[in-house]
Amino acid sequence: MIEAPKLRLSVEWSGDHIEVIDQTLLPGREELRRIDTVEGVVDAIRRLVVRGAPAIGACGAFGVVLGLQATRLGTVRSARRTLESVAARIAAARPTAIELPRAVQRTADATAGADSAEEMIERAEQEALAIQAEGRESCRLIGENGRRELAGVARILTHCNTGRLATSGWGTALGVVYAKAAAGEPVEVLASETRPLLQGARLTAWELSSAGIPVTLMTDSMSGAAMASGRVEAVVVGCDRVARNGDTANKIGTYTHAVVAHAHGIPFYVAGPLTTFDLDIGSGNEIVIEERPASEVLCCGGQQVAASVPVWNPAFDVTPAGLITAFITDRGILRPPYEESIPGAFGNGVGP
Amino acid sequence: MIEAPKLRLSVEWSGDHIEVIDQTLLPGREELRRIDTVEGVVDAIRRLVVRGAPAIGACGAFGVVLGLQATRLGTVRSARRTLESVAARIAAARPTAIELPRAVQRTADATAGADSAEEMIERAEQEALAIQAEGRESCRLIGENGRRELAGVARILTHCNTGRLATSGWGTALGVVYAKAAAGEPVEVLASETRPLLQGARLTAWELSSAGIPVTLMTDSMSGAAMASGRVEAVVVGCDRVARNGDTANKIGTYTHAVVAHAHGIPFYVAGPLTTFDLDIGSGNEIVIEERPASEVLCCGGQQVAASVPVWNPAFDVTPAGLITAFITDRGILRPPYEESIPGAFGNGVGP
Repeated sequence: MIEAPKLRLSVEWSGDHIEVIDQTLLPGREELRRIDTVEGVVDAIRRLVVRGAPAIGACGAFGVVLGLQATRLGTVRSARRTLESVAARIAAARPTAIELPRAVQRTADATAGADSAEEMIERAEQEALAIQAEGRESCRLIGENGRRELAGVARILTHCNTGRLATSGWGTALGVVYAKAAAGEPVEVLASETRPLLQGARLTAWELSSAGIPVTLMTDSMSGAAMASGRVEAVVVGCDRVARNGDTANKIGTYTHAVVAHAHGIPFYVAGPLTTFDLDIGSGNEIVIEERPASEVLCCGGQQVAASVPVWNPAFDVTPAGLITAFITDRGILRPPYEESIPGAFGNGVGP
Repeated sequence: MIEAPKLRLSVEWSGDHIEVIDQTLLPGREELRRIDTVEGVVDAIRRLVVRGAPAIGACGAFGVVLGLQATRLGTVRSARRTLESVAARIAAARPTAIELPRAVQRTADATAGADSAEEMIERAEQEALAIQAEGRESCRLIGENGRRELAGVARILTHCNTGRLATSGWGTALGVVYAKAAAGEPVEVLASETRPLLQGARLTAWELSSAGIPVTLMTDSMSGAAMASGRVEAVVVGCDRVARNGDTANKIGTYTHAVVAHAHGIPFYVAGPLTTFDLDIGSGNEIVIEERPASEVLCCGGQQVAASVPVWNPAFDVTPAGLITAFITDRGILRPPYEESIPGAFGNGVGP
């Protein structure tokens, strides 16, 4: 019987600082990193010390609290000025995931009407803790909803890392896997390594095998051969931002997996909380895709392995809604036509 | 103006030993390795010191000569016994490419009717040199035929390494690129890195940039995003074994690129000499796919980068004929229906 994460949360708040597991060092070393400044938060998010849309959302929210704490002795007016600049800096640390600016904004907004800098800090802290707690509950619901949707499916291909390290709970796509395992249902994961930064190889493989869940690692390019040879019953991935029409930005390589799954008639699921849906964005064309440094592709494990040539390194790609079988969310399963089901989930709610 | 390879051949025969560029060390170090035994040949092929179907064919042929030279002082009968075991050992060094057993067999067959061990050696040596010379000419023809076929196409995606290092000439898929460059036509290459062994990143990127041809490196998983964003006009890859119906075994990841190209309506070409076609094999189902050690996926640049979990590591995949726009061969362009054009190329020949 697999239980909810025994692992510490990827982001933990300690009253005056944040503690994170430095994900750049996994699986070789499991090291905590203390963050006590806004600069530290921005740096940790940018360098992927903390990563995963829900986890960077929580980290960003606590970052706002840290920024306010530095103004503890000032006036409300000066704290408010600081808040504005702090929120803008943190929200801009990475451009693609919607959860970061959204969590930051929500934390900042919670301070409205406070009478003192102290009260602003307190309200922000409560809000950030609430965001984290809601994230945990979201994961639980996603896991349960996905488990019911994928009853009878054992062999799941996933990409990148969407588990305990990437969220405030047991994960989104991996939450489905944990929920199946916790319910005693057979489940095994084929993890694509997720170049360039190998989140699949370093984090997903480590997380799942630590939890006793069977996982097999392959390179990203093997997904075609894996599907053609019957090794995959469903693909389940996470998401960094979902547009109103269902187009989904997620880790680079997701789109390639989706095209290949479609060609093989294998269902392709996107798992994520409603907080990663962005109704202000009509389609994937409007999603800003972060391009990251060439060194990520030229290097592997800190060592240059490639010839020194120009590199194209988009961190995400966009999977069009038409390739997505359904979304597994904390508010239930959203099915096509997404133009109806996505706004519907925000409006009236949908049952799981 | 780009000329035919100035680089030394990947496999050079020196009368009593083979010299190869150790491709496991590129691009960091350009080191020659001397091979003077059959064991050395088998080891070099197995460890990918020499790689690329045409190059391992040539290396295997010279390996037969080395094996015979060790019997120089014996009788024809003992030389013949040695020949048989030498040929079997070398041919089995890697299972997927047809060129290796074919070149070995051809070299062995050339010794038939010789009156002395000396004469056997001489005949084998002439045959091995002929195989290499024909390989060079094949590359030239493939390049020219591909250049004509791809007139007006500048942006080519390729996978793995199919150039000067992989063949006895300027390459197969990369031969097309070199031919375009040599003719002064615009050409730029998007190279997928080709995990796990990074032949794209280490060898193709190095080879092309050394030749002054614009090359951009990306991870394998980016091919979907690259095609969706208009960065690719055609995909051109090599092949390790082509079945009678056109199904093609090539470096793992090729099939994924082919599926994605098909979904985007982008032409997908396979370039290779007729010596990589195997009429004895009816379809891709019959091609033996080599599985390689887990360490190749767990490690990168000699360093373990992944969690220690089970790995699936097929070295090749099979692209069904239906996804292949045409074959660019040394005997011209072969188009569907391949059941006719492939046997036809062996029977009557087809004009370029």
